[in-house]
Amino acid sequence: MINTNTYLQRRAALKAKAGKGILVFLGNDQVGMNYRDNWYHFRQDSTFLYFTGLDLAGLALVIDIDSDTETLYGNDATVDDIVWQGPVPTIKELAATAGITKTAPLADLKNVFNPVSLPVISYLPPYRADHYIWLQQLTGYSDAEIDAKVSVPLIKAVVALRSVKSADEITEIGKAVNVTNAMQLKAMHYAKAGMTEAEIAGQLQAVAIAGGGDLSFPTILTTKGETLHIHYTSNIVEAGKLLLVDCGAELHNRYPGDLTRTFPVDKTFTSLQKDVYNIVLNAQQSAADALKPGIRYIDVHLLAAEKLVDGLKELGLMKGDSKEAVANHAHTLFFQCGLGHMLGLDIHDMENLGEKYVGYSEEMEKSKIFGLKSLRLARKLEPGFVLTVEPGLYFIPTLMDIWKKENKLSQFINYDKLDRFRNFSGIRIEENYAITDNGAQLLGEPLVKDVAGIEEIRRQVLS
Amino acid sequence: MINTNTYLQRRAALKAKAGKGILVFLGNDQVGMNYRDNWYHFRQDSTFLYFTGLDLAGLALVIDIDSDTETLYGNDATVDDIVWQGPVPTIKELAATAGITKTAPLADLKNVFNPVSLPVISYLPPYRADHYIWLQQLTGYSDAEIDAKVSVPLIKAVVALRSVKSADEITEIGKAVNVTNAMQLKAMHYAKAGMTEAEIAGQLQAVAIAGGGDLSFPTILTTKGETLHIHYTSNIVEAGKLLLVDCGAELHNRYPGDLTRTFPVDKTFTSLQKDVYNIVLNAQQSAADALKPGIRYIDVHLLAAEKLVDGLKELGLMKGDSKEAVANHAHTLFFQCGLGHMLGLDIHDMENLGEKYVGYSEEMEKSKIFGLKSLRLARKLEPGFVLTVEPGLYFIPTLMDIWKKENKLSQFINYDKLDRFRNFSGIRIEENYAITDNGAQLLGEPLVKDVAGIEEIRRQVLS
Repeated sequence: MINTNTYLQRRAALKAKAGKGILVFLGNDQVGMNYRDNWYHFRQDSTFLYFTGLDLAGLALVIDIDSDTETLYGNDATVDDIVWQGPVPTIKELAATAGITKTAPLADLKNVFNPVSLPVISYLPPYRADHYIWLQQLTGYSDAEIDAKVSVPLIKAVVALRSVKSADEITEIGKAVNVTNAMQLKAMHYAKAGMTEAEIAGQLQAVAIAGGGDLSFPTILTTKGETLHIHYTSNIVEAGKLLLVDCGAELHNRYPGDLTRTFPVDKTFTSLQKDVYNIVLNAQQSAADALKPGIRYIDVHLLAAEKLVDGLKELGLMKGDSKEAVANHAHTLFFQCGLGHMLGLDIHDMENLGEKYVGYSEEMEKSKIFGLKSLRLARKLEPGFVLTVEPGLYFIPTLMDIWKKENKLSQFINYDKLDRFRNFSGIRIEENYAITDNGAQLLGEPLVKDVAGIEEIRRQVLS
Repeated sequence: MINTNTYLQRRAALKAKAGKGILVFLGNDQVGMNYRDNWYHFRQDSTFLYFTGLDLAGLALVIDIDSDTETLYGNDATVDDIVWQGPVPTIKELAATAGITKTAPLADLKNVFNPVSLPVISYLPPYRADHYIWLQQLTGYSDAEIDAKVSVPLIKAVVALRSVKSADEITEIGKAVNVTNAMQLKAMHYAKAGMTEAEIAGQLQAVAIAGGGDLSFPTILTTKGETLHIHYTSNIVEAGKLLLVDCGAELHNRYPGDLTRTFPVDKTFTSLQKDVYNIVLNAQQSAADALKPGIRYIDVHLLAAEKLVDGLKELGLMKGDSKEAVANHAHTLFFQCGLGHMLGLDIHDMENLGEKYVGYSEEMEKSKIFGLKSLRLARKLEPGFVLTVEPGLYFIPTLMDIWKKENKLSQFINYDKLDRFRNFSGIRIEENYAITDNGAQLLGEPLVKDVAGIEEIRRQVLS
């Protein structure tokens, strides 16, 4: 169970890793949409959550290793706050749930940032504009200085801790995957030709909210699946198309799931859709089967790419040696992104701390080449890592036109066969895995992913 | 119809009102939740929308009245953008839909803010942290200077235009109210004892999303209706309680609805619930009936308060002369907030421009007294104003304890009768009206609001 003890242990581990100095963790604030008080739903900073479990706006945590004190900064509610927002625990009570004994009003945080202590203060990279403004006020630095003075040792210490998920965390992610499974099944059971994408996406969000949290990221639900991060629109879902659904629920404690399924708007896949689907499925299963401690995720990525090329060769779209095609990045005409990413309290776990620390090791540099530059995770896998496996095939007209015009890598691509795929759209299949001592474990209950199983559901729904 | 011509006319009217200078309107940007690229759903700035209709992130509009030019600043998509987010119109094409002929890359906006032009640049109050940072970079001002140098004449010009809704705008708000009606009916038809508040709230959001937009504000859905701005939680909805639902849909064009209904979790209201409900209903209907051009909304507010006191006297909770009780603010023990607010592209319309300009006139100062200090709209009503009418009765234990301890205004309050209401919670009824030439028009189709009508639905659902 994740409880007060967990937070005490996590902070103790952090102090041991960091060794000395003053560590400052700013919680997130409310964000106004179209005016200050019309808030987006609140999302706490994940590192702040990891070390405190406190899911409220307007808090900061200071760990002073040298004086061995931990202080929670925040303001108690006023009578006005109680009238408008109801009774809430005091800062003292909140701190106690995280095992923190010292508290202070938020304004006192300014005292921590005095000329004497400033050189030994460590903070993480800000990613929200309100954090820049807060740090400007606390440090007197410009935004450029704020970025430059981010603490790399603190980043590394936090990444080292958060990268390896405890059994409890893996259990929570599994629960979130199960809510996400329910979202995916809702899509398969609800979607019909003639509905708007939004109409279906709303149903999925209702499932996520009923699960006790909300979406872990904006739902991708589209018949234009070739666009990697398109969100749902008011477009009508048309018969004959494929619907790509990439969605996730976040539990009340913010642990998320992240799954993709692609299914026909009709009862069945067309013959071509089935062929392409099975190529992606084979790549996805091959990649999942390869997961184990010690393997570099970049090699799993390249394996998946090779399997995709194998299939595309059978389909007549590609040619030549598969390994050579992948080495030349020829597959990136159809698979432009990475195979997956770390998953934790963030859906792209710790992306705000920097991909080079999270997804790469010191001896690996991230490629700048199209395709590999979008690979978020490349490093050697370790037990406790949780990640997504999500290969896909995407037929992007603009990109196909550019490559064809340049006759790019034509030793691997049959450009005369591309036309048939101009309106094909895209297919992605995604699951979440935890790396175990000798392999990997699928998180959540298995969710239908084969052609027969999907068609069985669609037939039921549309009969 | 709201189209290119509308935006041209609105900007022409603005130029005529402002007279001279350079007017800068910053559009909103994406906001990351837990890292930069995990975005909240995008919400454009409403004034930017009002003058351009352009609902995309990363745009700015500059109207240079002296040189009679209008320029849209923004960046065209790259190939990478197209791969990840699909094809989008060029800035030139976007500008054309708003009737703007000049465009420039976003970086060029810096050139507008040169030492010569800076003194004649007008901008509106920023309300998002990213706008402060943007204005810091453009002007070189500190945040305090940015606030101090906001253009009051520009605020007044924009408020004058946006306050009076066109027939087309009133039609759009009516459509949004109808989607909101569907959300309210969904709540009445779906809610059952044993469900969580979140479970029901998710269903309402699905209705809003299917309507083509999303929520216009975070849904209030609670059996603790005494807390004015509490949102839904994972609390179980229990038999015997009242469910207060304050929600709104925002259409694809961002025009919103904002309605409240309060209904029993059971088939019927209890006798006491019915009595209190009818007091609120009478106040709500009396206030709505009083709406007409020329009446001050503060007087409608006080009328509603008086009607509430009349009812509370019959119930034995209050005593003395109703008008005198209201003049002494005795009603604020049970009605702590204002009667309503302007409604337009923002749910609290133009709240970011300042309540003193939007809800009050030059000769009226906003009260600092508990109750009246929360009245967002007080000024004389004019044809074309759109507003909410939403009285309520809220039994807040903390507040009742404080007043009772002080024996506050005991000439008007029967403190010995309060105990019965400790767990009553709260009731609010809210509708949206447009002021016409000689009265007011209910927006949207009429939605059930009497006890018999509500009980009829609840009986059907629970039988």
